[in-house]
Amino acid sequence: MDAFQVGTKAQAQAVDITRQVDSHVSAAAIEEGAVLVYCPHTTAGIYNNEGHDPDVARDVMAHLEKLVPRDGPYRHMEGNSAAHIRSILTGNGVLVPVSGGRIALGTWQRIFLAEFDGPRTRNVQLHYLSGGGNRVG
Amino acid sequence: MDAFQVGTKAQAQAVDITRQVDSHVSAAAIEEGAVLVYCPHTTAGIYNNEGHDPDVARDVMAHLEKLVPRDGPYRHMEGNSAAHIRSILTGNGVLVPVSGGRIALGTWQRIFLAEFDGPRTRNVQLHYLSGGGNRVG
Amino acid sequence: MDAFQVGTKAQAQAVDITRQVDSHVSAAAIEEGAVLVYCPHTTAGIYNNEGHDPDVARDVMAHLEKLVPRDGPYRHMEGNSAAHIRSILTGNGVLVPVSGGRIALGTWQRIFLAEFDGPRTRNVQLHYLSGGGNRVG
Repeated sequence: MDAFQVGTKAQAQAVDITRQVDSHVSAAAIEEGAVLVYCPHTTAGIYNNEGHDPDVARDVMAHLEKLVPRDGPYRHMEGNSAAHIRSILTGNGVLVPVSGGRIALGTWQRIFLAEFDGPRTRNVQLHYLSGGGNRVG
Repeated sequence: MDAFQVGTKAQAQAVDITRQVDSHVSAAAIEEGAVLVYCPHTTAGIYNNEGHDPDVARDVMAHLEKLVPRDGPYRHMEGNSAAHIRSILTGNGVLVPVSGGRIALGTWQRIFLAEFDGPRTRNVQLHYLSGGGNRVG
Repeated sequence: MDAFQVGTKAQAQAVDITRQVDSHVSAAAIEEGAVLVYCPHTTAGIYNNEGHDPDVARDVMAHLEKLVPRDGPYRHMEGNSAAHIRSILTGNGVLVPVSGGRIALGTWQRIFLAEFDGPRTRNVQLHYLSGGGNRVG
């Protein structure tokens, strides 16, 4: 496993982590398979979507805030239930194909850490999985 | 593949299944890789989020009910479209890292089966994936 | 990696791609493991849910449209932020178990490509992962 940290700067913020993921995969010399980009936290998410226009990530975060408002009513006393729920909606990990030693994203795809309860220092783990499947015979 | 069953007790309920997942992984003697915790149903989900305060899971389930109300209008005649849609929003499987023979969750993470159309007996499957990636040379 | 294309016919449409996924897995002679059904686009999703009654997929797509309306307000000038957000909510890949050379879905499960910004020609990639885990000793 590899890992790195991301410092978020706002309560809600999407941070493009594609470059860090790709350089770890390159350094690990994984040729084929997939990498599980995994966030061990419960109030942040990981998603894979467009990263060319920063307004898309802003729309994503603003709409998640509309769907799951910070002020409930919620029962959880810590006051961050909205962050937990948003993390479940995005998921806290994505599985990204690796091909020829690099992550194999589509033209517009980028990998984001979605902070829902920041600012904080977040850990991102990379778990490498073996490709090819187990073949017959 | 390993599998186990969970008996849910309400129409909507989040059940912490971490202990069962971890003991199957330990018994299977998987050293490194990941386990796909997979639900072969279409009106239940699997998610990975905080399990220390049971109020978080209650807030999650209540908010999903608000976002996707049981009474539509929906076209599907069986009357459980809301359960199908909630299952798609959470997803029906999570990929959990395995390290040193145990599932490697973050401090506050627990794995939940989310029942959206219970009470029922639900199947949970565990599919082990090989770690390490296919390395160069 | 295998891949195939899907031509979508409407702005929003769920297309059952189970047959194509299963025949590629059979042809690849994968015996055990999992297949990552992966969409390299940012305005379409992949989900695994019920495919017997086509009204369920219609309810899914209609409800996603209600949760994330096409007309914002959004900042992204291209006008398809709703499609990006819906893609994040469903996810753009699913990991499906493979057993005995076939995809191992539950009784009612089918794999869908969810078009959110069509009609278009979409690519679907199949990445095979090795099963079994890395065992002790």
